Amino acid sequence: PQSKLPNLGTTIFSQMSALAQQHQAINLSQGFPDFDGPRYLQERLAHHVAAGANQYAPMTGVLALRQAIAEKTGALYGYSPDVDDDITVTAGATEALYAAITALVRPGDEVICFDPSYDSYAPAVALSGGVLKRIALQPPHFGVDWDAFKALLSDKTRLVILNTPHNPSATVWHSANFDVLWQAIAEREIYVLSDEVYEHICFDPQGHASVLAHPQLRERAVAVSSFGKTYHMTGWKVGYCIAPPMISAELRKVHQYLTFAVNTPAQLALADMLRAEPDHYRQLPEFYRERRDLFINALKGGRLELLPCEGTYFLLADYSAISGLDDVSFCQWLTTEKGVAAIPLSVFCADPFPHKLIRLCFAKQPSTLQAAAERLRCL
Amino acid sequence: PQSKLPNLGTTIFSQMSALAQQHQAINLSQGFPDFDGPRYLQERLAHHVAAGANQYAPMTGVLALRQAIAEKTGALYGYSPDVDDDITVTAGATEALYAAITALVRPGDEVICFDPSYDSYAPAVALSGGVLKRIALQPPHFGVDWDAFKALLSDKTRLVILNTPHNPSATVWHSANFDVLWQAIAEREIYVLSDEVYEHICFDPQGHASVLAHPQLRERAVAVSSFGKTYHMTGWKVGYCIAPPMISAELRKVHQYLTFAVNTPAQLALADMLRAEPDHYRQLPEFYRERRDLFINALKGGRLELLPCEGTYFLLADYSAISGLDDVSFCQWLTTEKGVAAIPLSVFCADPFPHKLIRLCFAKQPSTLQAAAERLRCL
Ligand SMILES: CSCCC(=O)C(=O)O
Ligand SMILES: CSCCC(=O)C(=O)O
Repeated sequence: PQSKLPNLGTTIFSQMSALAQQHQAINLSQGFPDFDGPRYLQERLAHHVAAGANQYAPMTGVLALRQAIAEKTGALYGYSPDVDDDITVTAGATEALYAAITALVRPGDEVICFDPSYDSYAPAVALSGGVLKRIALQPPHFGVDWDAFKALLSDKTRLVILNTPHNPSATVWHSANFDVLWQAIAEREIYVLSDEVYEHICFDPQGHASVLAHPQLRERAVAVSSFGKTYHMTGWKVGYCIAPPMISAELRKVHQYLTFAVNTPAQLALADMLRAEPDHYRQLPEFYRERRDLFINALKGGRLELLPCEGTYFLLADYSAISGLDDVSFCQWLTTEKGVAAIPLSVFCADPFPHKLIRLCFAKQPSTLQAAAERLRCL
Repeated sequence: PQSKLPNLGTTIFSQMSALAQQHQAINLSQGFPDFDGPRYLQERLAHHVAAGANQYAPMTGVLALRQAIAEKTGALYGYSPDVDDDITVTAGATEALYAAITALVRPGDEVICFDPSYDSYAPAVALSGGVLKRIALQPPHFGVDWDAFKALLSDKTRLVILNTPHNPSATVWHSANFDVLWQAIAEREIYVLSDEVYEHICFDPQGHASVLAHPQLRERAVAVSSFGKTYHMTGWKVGYCIAPPMISAELRKVHQYLTFAVNTPAQLALADMLRAEPDHYRQLPEFYRERRDLFINALKGGRLELLPCEGTYFLLADYSAISGLDDVSFCQWLTTEKGVAAIPLSVFCADPFPHKLIRLCFAKQPSTLQAAAERLRCL
């Protein structure tokens, strides 16, 4: 059949993980921990399965989980979303992103995103017939040029997609960014998709700035989060999104025919976890800061130049002192010849990306990070 | 926001299950068992979770599960799909249906389906800008008028969606239907989406007729199946689809940005189950036939007129001897006043459906079926 996504291949994450496996490289490419999540969470899953909670969950998510999410959100961002109307549990954050884009973007609508941008946004926009307008951000700070942003706004602009803490750049937004964004779009009917899946992995002294903490913006926004990142269980595929009732109603129409509902026992286990240890995620910045700093220290003496890392479990490295290869070729070489898999940055950009940057995942055990750093130091 | 699916509400399954709960009615509406799946499957899930298999699965599905699916398919339909290229594990059959429709249907394309039809097809077609052409089937046999079908074919026809065993009519196709379908579409570039989620709940002496058993059609087809139905675990949300490489490549492009991957430990547990008890599903027809016949016998003496049930775990009943209410009102009355929840048939049809039919789910324990039948006998 003629392709609706003709220029699309397998995602870079699958490609690099497969290459890493094939060459027995240390896999710092696709973002996932090589350690396990809380034992309690696992036990609760086994409990609910054995107790027979194995039939369809409600379409919007298990009630106890939505209640726990509402409480947590209130404690974090001073805003308690409505349990019935605002919160929708999805098959990972990826489904939430896809459902939000599909619900909001009509054929011909323009969508603004910031490059480098996570690779699932563009195909979802394309499948809805939307036109993506990309603003290229520049290393090392990847700050938004707000004049360029305002110049892109038109009567066709429908949605702005942002991501903080930002994958792959590891930079974060501050609340001031949301103020500027709000001023820019307040007078227009423009919605905001705020990808905050790394909300609990933020090293910035000001902490994570959520769209949910902005009283005006959150009335136009879908905020997306992920339990996989928070509990080191990326394979469970449970995420959620928070949006005001009018937007939630539309994205639920999509969700209900896209997956209908999410794994029931996993939702019940997550609800138990949130109730039993409501502050568990507060350890995450410290937990990941240790790994980040261990990795940074272990890389000292090598020729990779590291960029600042304010959030996420990714670290950017400039390899221009080492090689003239483009970043895709460099990552292939690094995997097959040097035994460390990384992600090239250019794949997240529509325009040519003239920088020599790779992304390294440090959601790994100290021994893994040490072993990888040893190889990377000798490049 | 302006709705992309303006005429769409919450699915009838959520509505009726909520109403049933509110009125403590026996819930024979939404299709799910009120008994549990195999203990072994549950134990394997707990095992894999505790063993740390909690990170992303491969985008196409866990290898061991795809291998087991290939073997099972070969044993059943005399056709062994390719493990790498043909099989994709999805977040329930619902995601497989959505991904297949999204991959194949372009704006303006025509899609043929048979009414009554499962309620997720139409919204997926609409979101891709496709135009749905519905052929209305008539009770009690719901047979296809192939002349009407051929008259609908045009240069714009892109996809035919069929479902056997058929939800909600409980009728099945025979292989002869696939022959006629093939003759009708062979000369055109038309694809087939074959929803076979009840493949193992078929009471017909000829057994389930799968599109995969048809050597020509399967080269144009996506066959969809569901572990939730087969193992009585609708809440686990693991399904899969089988399609030739060219079609799989396209639907995987969608799947990879829709959910990316499916719950890892659940996939591993299902792979173990398929290996350990490869013939488990062969008991299903007998298992469900007993429940069906028990229910039919228990309903004797009442005024519901039952239609033939050749497959699925649903039974249709004509209530015209009892009430002049339309089917939606009758189901509401039945739930709130008589304590049994059922599904009205008209919600699966675009045209006015002038029959007085309701769908009753008999995937229930004998005691549940007895209790429901007692109430239904007295209408
Ligand atoms: C969906 S696999 C990719 C995981 C991830 O978010 C990343 O590596 O950036
Ligand atoms: C996705 S909930 C509906 C379950 C089902 O397939 C049915 O009841 O027909």
